[in-house]
Amino acid sequence: MSSQEEYQRVPLPALQELVCDILIRYQVPKEHAIIVADVLTSADLRGVESHGVGRLFSYYLGRLERGLMNPRAHVQVMRQIGSTAVLDGDNGLGHVAGYLGMEKCLELAAQHGLAITVVRNSNHYGMAGYYAMMALGKNMIGISLTNSQPLTIPTYGRTRMLGTNPISIAFPGGGEEPFVLDMATSVVAIGKMEVYRRKDLPVPRHWGADRDGMPTSDPNEVIEHGGVFPLGGPAENSGYKGYGLAAVVDILSGVLSGAGFLTGVLRPVDEDPCNVGHFFAAMQVDAFMPLHEFTDRMDQFIRQLRSSPRAKGAKQIFVAGEKEFMQEKRNRQLGVPIHPKVWQSLRDEAKRLGLRLWE
Amino acid sequence: MSSQEEYQRVPLPALQELVCDILIRYQVPKEHAIIVADVLTSADLRGVESHGVGRLFSYYLGRLERGLMNPRAHVQVMRQIGSTAVLDGDNGLGHVAGYLGMEKCLELAAQHGLAITVVRNSNHYGMAGYYAMMALGKNMIGISLTNSQPLTIPTYGRTRMLGTNPISIAFPGGGEEPFVLDMATSVVAIGKMEVYRRKDLPVPRHWGADRDGMPTSDPNEVIEHGGVFPLGGPAENSGYKGYGLAAVVDILSGVLSGAGFLTGVLRPVDEDPCNVGHFFAAMQVDAFMPLHEFTDRMDQFIRQLRSSPRAKGAKQIFVAGEKEFMQEKRNRQLGVPIHPKVWQSLRDEAKRLGLRLWE
Repeated sequence: MSSQEEYQRVPLPALQELVCDILIRYQVPKEHAIIVADVLTSADLRGVESHGVGRLFSYYLGRLERGLMNPRAHVQVMRQIGSTAVLDGDNGLGHVAGYLGMEKCLELAAQHGLAITVVRNSNHYGMAGYYAMMALGKNMIGISLTNSQPLTIPTYGRTRMLGTNPISIAFPGGGEEPFVLDMATSVVAIGKMEVYRRKDLPVPRHWGADRDGMPTSDPNEVIEHGGVFPLGGPAENSGYKGYGLAAVVDILSGVLSGAGFLTGVLRPVDEDPCNVGHFFAAMQVDAFMPLHEFTDRMDQFIRQLRSSPRAKGAKQIFVAGEKEFMQEKRNRQLGVPIHPKVWQSLRDEAKRLGLRLWE
Repeated sequence: MSSQEEYQRVPLPALQELVCDILIRYQVPKEHAIIVADVLTSADLRGVESHGVGRLFSYYLGRLERGLMNPRAHVQVMRQIGSTAVLDGDNGLGHVAGYLGMEKCLELAAQHGLAITVVRNSNHYGMAGYYAMMALGKNMIGISLTNSQPLTIPTYGRTRMLGTNPISIAFPGGGEEPFVLDMATSVVAIGKMEVYRRKDLPVPRHWGADRDGMPTSDPNEVIEHGGVFPLGGPAENSGYKGYGLAAVVDILSGVLSGAGFLTGVLRPVDEDPCNVGHFFAAMQVDAFMPLHEFTDRMDQFIRQLRSSPRAKGAKQIFVAGEKEFMQEKRNRQLGVPIHPKVWQSLRDEAKRLGLRLWE
């Protein structure tokens, strides 16, 4: 958000209700619409605008409207052995499959101490961190991974073979907020390239490759012909590590679940099911040590990092998730900031569907 | 290895025996010495010279000699609940604690489908991938993490707070070799900086920071006063992602196990126990899908990546572990390549101890 002032501030419950009501008009059952609305608005609430309600039309409603995604998906457990389960998302909204997949994982971890569930035949599930954070309320550590449409080129390659395949892991905190890592395994999101293109600015040469697989500062070349580099950048900056991580996420989410993998994961603009896969894990903290001892140690860990000497000119050392919790606190008070264009499209859609709108 | 020619080629069994015999003279019981020798020589075998027998003196024998590490450690399970266990390494060789920690994990995973073990009060355990790969023979997926002495600076920081904290994960392959990721969460190892310093060459500015936490091309400044950047590099190249990953490894290995974390993990040159922590996980593939189906899918995954269009001038697209398996194959035939200086020190030590030496 460059200029906060233009953004519409919407109270969280009103925003959730609006998104929920719109989804219901697209034949999504209410209990599922509530989940999707919560995942999407949580992203905006935490300042992760790229994964928020701004994607409602292009990623979700568009596909529902075109009959490419199942609004009334019946997410099913296909296989359950011990503390593991495999679910089928029935080509429904990824948020529903993700929510039910993590819920199942937490249920199994409550019985067994730890658990893993995988989901196949799903779609884009929004912000990975949402599902990892579902573990926090149960005093568990939560992990959420997903594959996604190809955008990232492998090291020494030149075509998009891997998604931005995020890794999220959430640890309960004590006096401090939880530690929540939620990161794409690419250097940057393609959306960041688009911002540079709109502003006609060159991008840093470690971000993306041209049609030949070579580093370029031309965002247009990256968007139209090349792809983004895995975390690290080109090979000489250890981009093969990000490539390795992206591959691991694809194997755990896609290969192991029976979902698509690599170019077998389709894009929201494609005409067939995306067949996205997810991976969830949860572990009870007190299987390892008493909860209060762990959260005390987490507090020490966070405080020691935060109070370590800062780089010249740096104001603050953050830990993962800290900025998002600050945003969340602020936005709960002031309302969730929604980009004016997104707000306009929500208003238009509400009007078209004859829904009451918060003003 | 820049010039292979100078390296001594030693048959693997002879090298293992020599390292084992030396360790035994340092009061390490034979069954433990065999483990340590296997871990160290495996690294050289796979071309990971930085984690091989070249470290025997500085990281291990030196500490044994000075009485800072326990040669006859009694590694114990301190807590076992369901499919989780916490072990204490008794300040012994990290390889022994690592091996026994992963062995326990595999035993629990065989019963429960998946398992996690953590180890505290340990020392440097060598190559992380060794332990992850122990899962392969059991048709399981293996994960191995460890924290280590502080070398990496947090984003916006300027002092070493985190280790190079590696992540390793191994997946069984079918016709193809297993997929084995084994990577530090820093951009590069400090050892790479030392190579540049010896050659009086500037290092890429994304690798390390000076005393102010700013990117520098002076390897001396990085080694003496600054530290290496986390994977990604400085903040603007998404180095906060590598920082987040390094922190996650420290939390899982150190905070959760009861070991040291951050600057609480000491260096091999320090005068107190290092209190390193490890984290191991294993999961049975056939809890999720029939093994042959998974290995078929892994083969497809690997072949699709490898045969995707290459960048201009690139000869080959690799998958994680592929180069190391190629090295291993070659070195099993030709003998394990040992740096002349390392070979000399092994010979000298053997002579001093009155051990028979392979020639």
